Amino acid sequence: MDSTIKKICEGDVRTASRLIRDIEDKRPEARATMKKLYPHTGKSFIVGVTGAPGAGKSTLTDALISAFRKLNKTVGVLAIDPTSPFTGGAILGDRIRMSRHAEDDGVFIRSLATRGALGGLSYAAGNAILVMEAMGKDMILVETVGIGQQEIDIINHAHSVVVVLVPGMGDEIQTMKAGLMEIADVFVINKADRSGAGQLQTELTSMLNLLPGTANDWKPPIVMVGSAFDPASFAEDTTALARKIEEHHGYLQESGKLAERMSRKAMAEIKDALSSHLMEPLMHSLTASGELKKLSEKTKNRISDPYTIVEEIAQRFFKKDH
Amino acid sequence: MDSTIKKICEGDVRTASRLIRDIEDKRPEARATMKKLYPHTGKSFIVGVTGAPGAGKSTLTDALISAFRKLNKTVGVLAIDPTSPFTGGAILGDRIRMSRHAEDDGVFIRSLATRGALGGLSYAAGNAILVMEAMGKDMILVETVGIGQQEIDIINHAHSVVVVLVPGMGDEIQTMKAGLMEIADVFVINKADRSGAGQLQTELTSMLNLLPGTANDWKPPIVMVGSAFDPASFAEDTTALARKIEEHHGYLQESGKLAERMSRKAMAEIKDALSSHLMEPLMHSLTASGELKKLSEKTKNRISDPYTIVEEIAQRFFKKDH
Repeated sequence: MDSTIKKICEGDVRTASRLIRDIEDKRPEARATMKKLYPHTGKSFIVGVTGAPGAGKSTLTDALISAFRKLNKTVGVLAIDPTSPFTGGAILGDRIRMSRHAEDDGVFIRSLATRGALGGLSYAAGNAILVMEAMGKDMILVETVGIGQQEIDIINHAHSVVVVLVPGMGDEIQTMKAGLMEIADVFVINKADRSGAGQLQTELTSMLNLLPGTANDWKPPIVMVGSAFDPASFAEDTTALARKIEEHHGYLQESGKLAERMSRKAMAEIKDALSSHLMEPLMHSLTASGELKKLSEKTKNRISDPYTIVEEIAQRFFKKDH
Repeated sequence: MDSTIKKICEGDVRTASRLIRDIEDKRPEARATMKKLYPHTGKSFIVGVTGAPGAGKSTLTDALISAFRKLNKTVGVLAIDPTSPFTGGAILGDRIRMSRHAEDDGVFIRSLATRGALGGLSYAAGNAILVMEAMGKDMILVETVGIGQQEIDIINHAHSVVVVLVPGMGDEIQTMKAGLMEIADVFVINKADRSGAGQLQTELTSMLNLLPGTANDWKPPIVMVGSAFDPASFAEDTTALARKIEEHHGYLQESGKLAERMSRKAMAEIKDALSSHLMEPLMHSLTASGELKKLSEKTKNRISDPYTIVEEIAQRFFKKDH
């Protein structure tokens, strides 16, 4: 076995971190390594933790690490952060709090920046998850802001999806619930000590009752999690959440539905790789040669239009029949 | 001139709406129409209105319509809504309030759903903007949730970007500010009567002072907008906002930077068209034939890996040299 692959499979943090960074930096050799690593993946349970900004996902993820560690599970965490070239890198925020797991060999935490002109974030996330799978982590928590299509793409790499809601975050967030509704396996009403928590629970329950499904289907539970400022009850609530996630894992295994989720994940991997390995080189070639700039001047001045230009590009790059 | 093109250029609402719907539904004939419509576009000023969910963007957009109408500008509005097949379509929310502009021929409002497996939202948005340009709208407001890459892609279709912030929305939103920082031309601190508005203004000002730039560069102003429940002062605040947007328009024209923004938009149009017209047919062909399903079973069972599969697909679809 290749020494890099061997080291990652033994859980070597430094080698794994370097590979994740190489993926993020889109270094070509990362792909060759991933190819060799792939056979060693596929044994972890991947949990997506998603919800609106400000819903307290990081604090919850932090607590889930502790809860799963108590259940003797090793844990990988992938946090997807909004970042900016202006701030000069990832903003750590409350991620710092997670440093209390730094001494624990059973925990591996990495964050991905959301930069990157052509997206590709979902591809990087999928690969980072695979690296953690190869490291042998039992549970991998993927924390993401659940809004855009790109975030939904990332969630397709998870086997189980936890959607975090908070009371009183305005109408727009309530509408977002709808978009997250059909992907949720477990709901959390976080900061449940706030006013409006009961009403949110009632609303959510009635929305869930409208979902089609038979008696044997999984009915997404709603877990109420109180303030993190009350450590004892917070630990209790998040332990209950960890148990619900385990329960869902059990359900997926027994019902045979884990295989479906694994197929969904495999499909997401191929789709992301297609976008990254086909579109990106094409865009790169058009950008590096200055051709994209020239073409956009032509459309800007209405000498041509984007539709005709793309047809011409397609004729050059794509085979007629396949 | 084609009768469809003629009607849209005359501002016919029904024909324009049908074309936007056809774009959203990805009907192939929409592309041919867009090709003919493109020479009639390029004269509007496009304003992106973005910010976190719950920042009050819709209410603000609504007020901006009135403010620009008073300045005798015709207005197009494109709202990008999170929707769901579960809820059976776009959730209107406070968009209903905009119906008070329904009788006004100078206003055209449409919303786009954020559905669509492969993204393509930015492509649909760009095309819907072009339709409104052909209709002869002076100002086009594009309202979007400013978080993911896809939303940033949409914002690239705007000439001027208004970023809406609100006091007291938690740490995670503060970090989002960073991501929005370098794309903002005008900042709004909305709900500025809330506590924390002054502090947010101070923070934002010091962040803006850190931005590189010369004395002649545009310095993004911060417009404070109070509660919409106080209609008189709200109208005053939003009129001030409309004026700042006009000011930015004037700056872009005088400095010659409007041409840069128009190039950015033209480039976004080509990029989106490339993704839509190259990736989508490829994905469609792989999905419809059931091949994607078969390939994902192979990777799921670790018989192959996504990287090898994509190399094989590339060999089949892509020309070796171009």
